[in-house]
Amino acid sequence: MAAMSDPTPIRPIERAERAARCRTLFETLPDDVRAVVLFDDQYVQYFTGFVFAATERPIAAVLLPDGERILFVPRLEREHAPAASDADRVVDYPEYPGERHPMEHLHDLLAEAGAGRGTVGHDHDGYPPVMGYLPRPLSERWTVRSVIPEVEARMRIKSPHEIALIREASRWAGVAHRRMQDATKPGLREEDAAGPASATTSAELATAIGPGYRRRNRWISGALALYRGQIGPASAFPHALADDVRFAEGDVLVTGASADVWGYLSELERTMVLGVPDAERRRWFDHMLAVQDLAFDAIRPGTPCSEVDRRVQEYVDAHGLREHWRHHVGHGLGQRIHESPFLDVGDATILEPEMVLSVEPGLYVPGLGGFRHSDTVRVTEDGIEMLTDYPRDLASLTLPVP
Amino acid sequence: MAAMSDPTPIRPIERAERAARCRTLFETLPDDVRAVVLFDDQYVQYFTGFVFAATERPIAAVLLPDGERILFVPRLEREHAPAASDADRVVDYPEYPGERHPMEHLHDLLAEAGAGRGTVGHDHDGYPPVMGYLPRPLSERWTVRSVIPEVEARMRIKSPHEIALIREASRWAGVAHRRMQDATKPGLREEDAAGPASATTSAELATAIGPGYRRRNRWISGALALYRGQIGPASAFPHALADDVRFAEGDVLVTGASADVWGYLSELERTMVLGVPDAERRRWFDHMLAVQDLAFDAIRPGTPCSEVDRRVQEYVDAHGLREHWRHHVGHGLGQRIHESPFLDVGDATILEPEMVLSVEPGLYVPGLGGFRHSDTVRVTEDGIEMLTDYPRDLASLTLPVP
Repeated sequence: MAAMSDPTPIRPIERAERAARCRTLFETLPDDVRAVVLFDDQYVQYFTGFVFAATERPIAAVLLPDGERILFVPRLEREHAPAASDADRVVDYPEYPGERHPMEHLHDLLAEAGAGRGTVGHDHDGYPPVMGYLPRPLSERWTVRSVIPEVEARMRIKSPHEIALIREASRWAGVAHRRMQDATKPGLREEDAAGPASATTSAELATAIGPGYRRRNRWISGALALYRGQIGPASAFPHALADDVRFAEGDVLVTGASADVWGYLSELERTMVLGVPDAERRRWFDHMLAVQDLAFDAIRPGTPCSEVDRRVQEYVDAHGLREHWRHHVGHGLGQRIHESPFLDVGDATILEPEMVLSVEPGLYVPGLGGFRHSDTVRVTEDGIEMLTDYPRDLASLTLPVP
Repeated sequence: MAAMSDPTPIRPIERAERAARCRTLFETLPDDVRAVVLFDDQYVQYFTGFVFAATERPIAAVLLPDGERILFVPRLEREHAPAASDADRVVDYPEYPGERHPMEHLHDLLAEAGAGRGTVGHDHDGYPPVMGYLPRPLSERWTVRSVIPEVEARMRIKSPHEIALIREASRWAGVAHRRMQDATKPGLREEDAAGPASATTSAELATAIGPGYRRRNRWISGALALYRGQIGPASAFPHALADDVRFAEGDVLVTGASADVWGYLSELERTMVLGVPDAERRRWFDHMLAVQDLAFDAIRPGTPCSEVDRRVQEYVDAHGLREHWRHHVGHGLGQRIHESPFLDVGDATILEPEMVLSVEPGLYVPGLGGFRHSDTVRVTEDGIEMLTDYPRDLASLTLPVP
């Protein structure tokens, strides 16, 4: 009912929704799983709202079948974690390495929670090694099994609230992208166009979202538009890094834009040409549009992810473009910049309504440039809804040269 | 000899040094280890110079006893990886998930390299799960053992070139910190002081380092000074996150500053007071200086890391400050913002010359603020060299109120 009066709540995910994620996860797990331990920062955030960067000090979310969500943190976080999460309880250990290994404290917590009567589900058998942390496995004490498949299956179906946040993040990506496109001129550097576009849009976004907003996403902060150095011939590197290049007439440009709205993001990428495109640039652009259209048409509930990629690859081979192929069609996204499922010949996942995917088949021409649009789409009952809304045609993406 | 004419080479780590790291790692491993596979992005960078952010597409460095360093990457990186690393060879697989799991391609590479005749050393039994990657272990095919202890032992002893880069990163942290300190006034926000200080110093750093410089460090880009929201009472959270706070007279402030110089960083933190400090603030500041001095005095070759932390904790208990304690004394750093060894009661590592450590015991007073200085020091033959060089006394860290 709340959804009727407020169709797109641009608010943080509520505590009740995070608690429901925990309960419904257990519905997909065997009854003998008496506790789930998640170490991945993204999984911890998804279930408890706690945002952190992994260090040598283990942090975990412990989920219990009755829906209780416990955050396990170092002493350092005792005051911060309850204020910055909606976990039901926070339990801390003194320090890493400490006189007693943090995994022993975690074992105590699991024992108290009744894990000994069954199996402990996990995303990793112990906190993974990072920054010199010396791992000790959960399996030194418990019977364990991975619950990554179930957690991924849970995360890939988005709620109405999540969709609303991703839609809003898509809208802001478009605002930043438009500003960057308009500011791109021969002789300037990436930073001259991307920097002000991102800063101005981030400030507007912060104002629109209102007080209390702060960084919730590991990858994106505010709104962002950029080229990542994919300028001219360097755009043939799918993930080029920014270097000191100036825009010049004839450049093929590959953009990226996104925004963080209460922890959820979007992906918008466009291929643009600086000045009137010649026949060769038009030809590659048309191939790129054709494969993205193929992918859009292929995405519908009941179709395996692999099928979408296969259709694009058939086009690639039918047109003799294999040497210009570099990567699959796309991936899930939401809180994470990439996530399962993958629009890839190797992913048998069946597409379902409320999955959110990037659609971004690319073609790369050494010496000339890269050709890739990326849009964020929602799988609907009978096809897709475009969440990003930005012109795709070459005329709209041809930049004037004064 | 080169070191005589150019005592502080502010250049990237040379290919020869990265190759030597590989050869000397094998000197510390049993003879039956015929290949080492490292998945951690920091280990990959240390041995090959390749900088990347982990996604669902596995990347690994494969090291061989004869010193060969092979980068294993997705097709996407085939052109980029040789240009952006000094690996001897780059081997790629089509895609993840792909029709054949990337680990099968890695198995082929290891078989070709002769791993079948012995043990495969690793930092993790297979590429760790991230972004929905479904792991498959190396041990499904090979006899494996962790080489994290040997890799950490190798990384924690810094070369003269590494020390020179960290020293330079320490100098730039000081420049950024000075600017931020001078710009901090009542009524302003963190961003008003930290933003311009970081931007100006980053621009100077880029000019000083010269062409070709670009982001090499996962945590720090350019030069940085900030408060992380540790302003006034919020400074009592050791790792507070920036929020919309304005500086006010009486605030206790905890700063952070660092810089990235060809991938190596530094750590500089100071406690400051806005306006004339009262007796209570002086008392806490003096305790904090006393524990940092204790730690400085305790660090010398031959001493266990645990002893440094123990002496600080003895002071804490002797003065009844236990409820104000939150974390150990410090940690290694270099390419990583934290790394082993840890100045912690639980770390028995013996201090050796050319280790680089942060020294940052802290005391936290809810409602009043946090008290922590952090300096970066090098362990010498008979004690320490301070790599950060910034005033530590309260008079120098008292900010005037107009």
